[in-house]
Amino acid sequence: MKLYSNRFAPSPRRLRIFLAEKGLEIPTVEVDLAGNENLDPAFLAINPLGELPALVLDDGRVITESIAACRYLEALHPEPNLFGRDADERAVVDQWTYRVMFRLYEPVRQAFRNTHRFWADRIHQVPEFGILARDAALAELKALDTELAGREFLAGARYTFADITALCAIDFGKPSGIRVTGELPNLARWHAVVQARPAVKAE
Amino acid sequence: MKLYSNRFAPSPRRLRIFLAEKGLEIPTVEVDLAGNENLDPAFLAINPLGELPALVLDDGRVITESIAACRYLEALHPEPNLFGRDADERAVVDQWTYRVMFRLYEPVRQAFRNTHRFWADRIHQVPEFGILARDAALAELKALDTELAGREFLAGARYTFADITALCAIDFGKPSGIRVTGELPNLARWHAVVQARPAVKAE
Repeated sequence: MKLYSNRFAPSPRRLRIFLAEKGLEIPTVEVDLAGNENLDPAFLAINPLGELPALVLDDGRVITESIAACRYLEALHPEPNLFGRDADERAVVDQWTYRVMFRLYEPVRQAFRNTHRFWADRIHQVPEFGILARDAALAELKALDTELAGREFLAGARYTFADITALCAIDFGKPSGIRVTGELPNLARWHAVVQARPAVKAE
Repeated sequence: MKLYSNRFAPSPRRLRIFLAEKGLEIPTVEVDLAGNENLDPAFLAINPLGELPALVLDDGRVITESIAACRYLEALHPEPNLFGRDADERAVVDQWTYRVMFRLYEPVRQAFRNTHRFWADRIHQVPEFGILARDAALAELKALDTELAGREFLAGARYTFADITALCAIDFGKPSGIRVTGELPNLARWHAVVQARPAVKAE
């Protein structure tokens, strides 16, 4: 296998933390997003979407959705388990992963795209929408804080892929002013625990 | 189990087609979105997000993400298989499901939210963003047409959950002017095949 990745982007980070948790190493090529290397014909031949990560399997197939890549790698390397041990736990991890992706990651992404100077010359920005997206992300942080009042991790009593997803979404909010403050004590406690994991600290 | 659903919304439709493909019936309560019944305290006690579908399990847990609900039901009722038979096929179905959700469903949803009169009094609309979202959805339809030049269904030679996801996303685009036209012959062929399935026609 071969992984095309980027050190600063949130979706590659999701996969990178997952690999570290599993103790897996995959030969990795760094793609320079700031220099638009992802739009070079050489990279577009690997992923026509020009996005990262891109995991090239030994048979030549390419998986470009980080969550699909992680779930696939879990099937090949079941331990330590991060997607759930039985149908019930898998449903809860799946549920929280989707919820975080749609209600937190997506608004965080839109806040960044529509207000940050990185995208100013790359897309047609709509700052008015970016500000609404930031507000939606902040509202979801509040909702997650309420959820975490009753349990240690998003999907229950143990750390799972849903927590990796949430960590990457939250940290990606920093340049848009989306942060875990002291007004969200449960989320702050959870954030400190997840950040202290060796797989996260080692990054 | 008990299902809270709505006849006109795209996420409940995804689950409804999946159930029909499986030959499963779950007692269903129709929730009136146009009348804001989803925001009644009685429904918010079931799903604090006020969203549909909501699948209440026998132990009281509630699954509110339609894809998580479908994957859970597939674990309980494996046949006919819709999420992939082995790790490789599951990865491809997963990959296309995520891709369609993020690159097609999400822009279709934003086009509808930000330009349609249904949302005019419900949210702060940003029509400029809605139009960009519509253009992004149309670009993704073109990309899917190119993909489908080489195979019959999204994830390969057979119909899977990725096709259900794409059908619901595409049809949800109608009120925003997002349609499969004759300029997308592969997508049009696929759309006709999927629409003709008994589980889809029976709706």
